[in-house]
Amino acid sequence: MSEYKVLFHIDELNKWKILLANVSNLLAGMEHDELHIEVVANGEAVQYYDLNQELYANKNLMITLHKKGVKFVACNNALKSLGLEKERIIPLVEVVPSGVVEIVKRQSEGFVYIKP
Amino acid sequence: MSEYKVLFHIDELNKWKILLANVSNLLAGMEHDELHIEVVANGEAVQYYDLNQELYANKNLMITLHKKGVKFVACNNALKSLGLEKERIIPLVEVVPSGVVEIVKRQSEGFVYIKP
Amino acid sequence: MSEYKVLFHIDELNKWKILLANVSNLLAGMEHDELHIEVVANGEAVQYYDLNQELYANKNLMITLHKKGVKFVACNNALKSLGLEKERIIPLVEVVPSGVVEIVKRQSEGFVYIKP
Repeated sequence: MSEYKVLFHIDELNKWKILLANVSNLLAGMEHDELHIEVVANGEAVQYYDLNQELYANKNLMITLHKKGVKFVACNNALKSLGLEKERIIPLVEVVPSGVVEIVKRQSEGFVYIKP
Repeated sequence: MSEYKVLFHIDELNKWKILLANVSNLLAGMEHDELHIEVVANGEAVQYYDLNQELYANKNLMITLHKKGVKFVACNNALKSLGLEKERIIPLVEVVPSGVVEIVKRQSEGFVYIKP
Repeated sequence: MSEYKVLFHIDELNKWKILLANVSNLLAGMEHDELHIEVVANGEAVQYYDLNQELYANKNLMITLHKKGVKFVACNNALKSLGLEKERIIPLVEVVPSGVVEIVKRQSEGFVYIKP
């Protein structure tokens, strides 16, 4: 058993479907390893976390992945520029001050980077 | 002479032209170094490997690059979801069970990541 | 205070706005750290550096970021394939023979990779 730390970066709304499929495939393909997965959304991609959005179709998949340990993160700079208040964000999402700072720090901690 | 390991990730069909140009330029620009290059395709990008596809125009370039040591990889999850059987894939391509697992493992082995 | 090295890669013209916002947010969010930031443009993205382009709206932001230490780099392979002479490039931009070689070497020197 090996330990892997993986950061997925998303900044385009239309990439969520493939990103969530990637995360699911990674969990399935490394079930015998110790996996730390974090999904960092910035730019327009944070709209996916909006509780009021119709497009928000894979909430169940996000909840399932979150229960398996996947961390979902939103960039607060992006939320602010889109006028999205934290109260409107799916509760399982963690808000960080800056998405790019999170991406830099995680990679410095040994996370590998994947951009679907 | 230094040794470099480079992983190119592609998940969009329309990025193949720039990806193959990137790989060619990398080989030309580091001809005095020891280079290990791997191209991992997942999502819709694996359709490029389809022997029956008309769009498949740069087969000669892929063969040339492969002869220079470039490894081309297809994600089997993607092939299955697109109904593409392994027999329809260009023979020089190596099929792995999961593209994202391949990307994570290679980076953990010291490959740097580039997403054209 | 920690030291971080960050490489931003851009190969699509329409990503410049989000890239420059990312760089600005990174500088603002890590003002107490020692940051080395390099932006490497290849493919069509190098057209943004063209002095004659109307689209080139954020020159002031680039100059501001450059004064804060951000290094802007253009791939000469891309310039040549687009027929863009070096004299037409914004003077603060550094031209390297190959963008992908730059990306590989910087990552090998410890730069983390972000592709907006």
